[in-house]
Amino acid sequence: MRPVTSKRVPRAVREQQMLDAAVSVFGRQGFHAASMDDIAELAGISKPMVYAYLGTKEDLFRACLHREATRMVEAVVGAVGSSTRPDEQLWNGLRGFFSFVGERRDGWNMIYRQSRGLEPFASEWAEMRGRMIDIVSGLLARAVESAGGPSGPEHLEPVTYALVGAAESMADWLADRPGEDPGRTAARLMNFIWLGAEDLLHGAVWRPSS
Amino acid sequence: MRPVTSKRVPRAVREQQMLDAAVSVFGRQGFHAASMDDIAELAGISKPMVYAYLGTKEDLFRACLHREATRMVEAVVGAVGSSTRPDEQLWNGLRGFFSFVGERRDGWNMIYRQSRGLEPFASEWAEMRGRMIDIVSGLLARAVESAGGPSGPEHLEPVTYALVGAAESMADWLADRPGEDPGRTAARLMNFIWLGAEDLLHGAVWRPSS
Repeated sequence: MRPVTSKRVPRAVREQQMLDAAVSVFGRQGFHAASMDDIAELAGISKPMVYAYLGTKEDLFRACLHREATRMVEAVVGAVGSSTRPDEQLWNGLRGFFSFVGERRDGWNMIYRQSRGLEPFASEWAEMRGRMIDIVSGLLARAVESAGGPSGPEHLEPVTYALVGAAESMADWLADRPGEDPGRTAARLMNFIWLGAEDLLHGAVWRPSS
Repeated sequence: MRPVTSKRVPRAVREQQMLDAAVSVFGRQGFHAASMDDIAELAGISKPMVYAYLGTKEDLFRACLHREATRMVEAVVGAVGSSTRPDEQLWNGLRGFFSFVGERRDGWNMIYRQSRGLEPFASEWAEMRGRMIDIVSGLLARAVESAGGPSGPEHLEPVTYALVGAAESMADWLADRPGEDPGRTAARLMNFIWLGAEDLLHGAVWRPSS
């Protein structure tokens, strides 16, 4: 008797299972090396069904990228929360970001290591990065405003790029080191960003209030 | 009468002319879109001669990448100089780096935007990035040592990645903005790295001693 459960899975759930399998295969093997056979096998679904549900390999990669990038943005925005202290906002955002990278290394590989260099996904990559820049830029603008400093975008834009680049690079360091704790990595970056090298060299430490 | 000068150009000079033309074409058009015809034409040399001197398009791209990356590393190492103050060392290194990016945008495009995503050049990209990480890591280790702090590599490595990532991201911001002054961009990053967000929010400014 065939297992009836496999027929009862709703389409939306089935699609998420396929995307889970695809993120895992793409994230480890890369776009070119990954095969639809491997993805179908890992998802426990026939290959024609994968094509029928999600289209070509390129469509599938794009759908994975979109889902992972959306989760990354949500992880950061959701973590920033409603704290009014700028350092706490930054700290919460960094924790959300590094947690995402620690928990979803395959998704991170797709977003950061693969899509940026793949011609068909260049616009997706630029759009994702633009969203991260916007989030951090808004966060910095509010911090500057609350401190009564100059908040013109021409002033903040390059620093926003520096902050995003620092977080990306450290996250990529984390993605290669499964033994590292994402919260600890976030704390290291928070100290660096908030206190600066001079204070750190003199032994200063930033700590969250809670 | 044919111009005799074109026959008198030594091979080494001719090769550098070809590399100059190739960096300009690759940097603006990317590896796939760039044609050997365009490169030969810009260099004022026949296409068979380009192949004879520097090999296939892949060989040529690799030769360009190697030359530009070497210049980038030399620009940073040369600029750090012999200052003993850690902030001056960092400042000099950043100035060297941003000057390079400002002066050689096509080279920067090849190094940062193109090679990292192109399969045949993945190992070159990793090697170049490793050299930058080593340089910055040595610089930070000396700074920490001179301040008497803990200098274990496990402590410094993630911060090194953050610093390199911040500089790369801000340099890429600069590369798209021909009107920006590289020295001013370097000063922005120096302030951010050295003083940190907290001091900057309260109006602090880092200034070089000279």
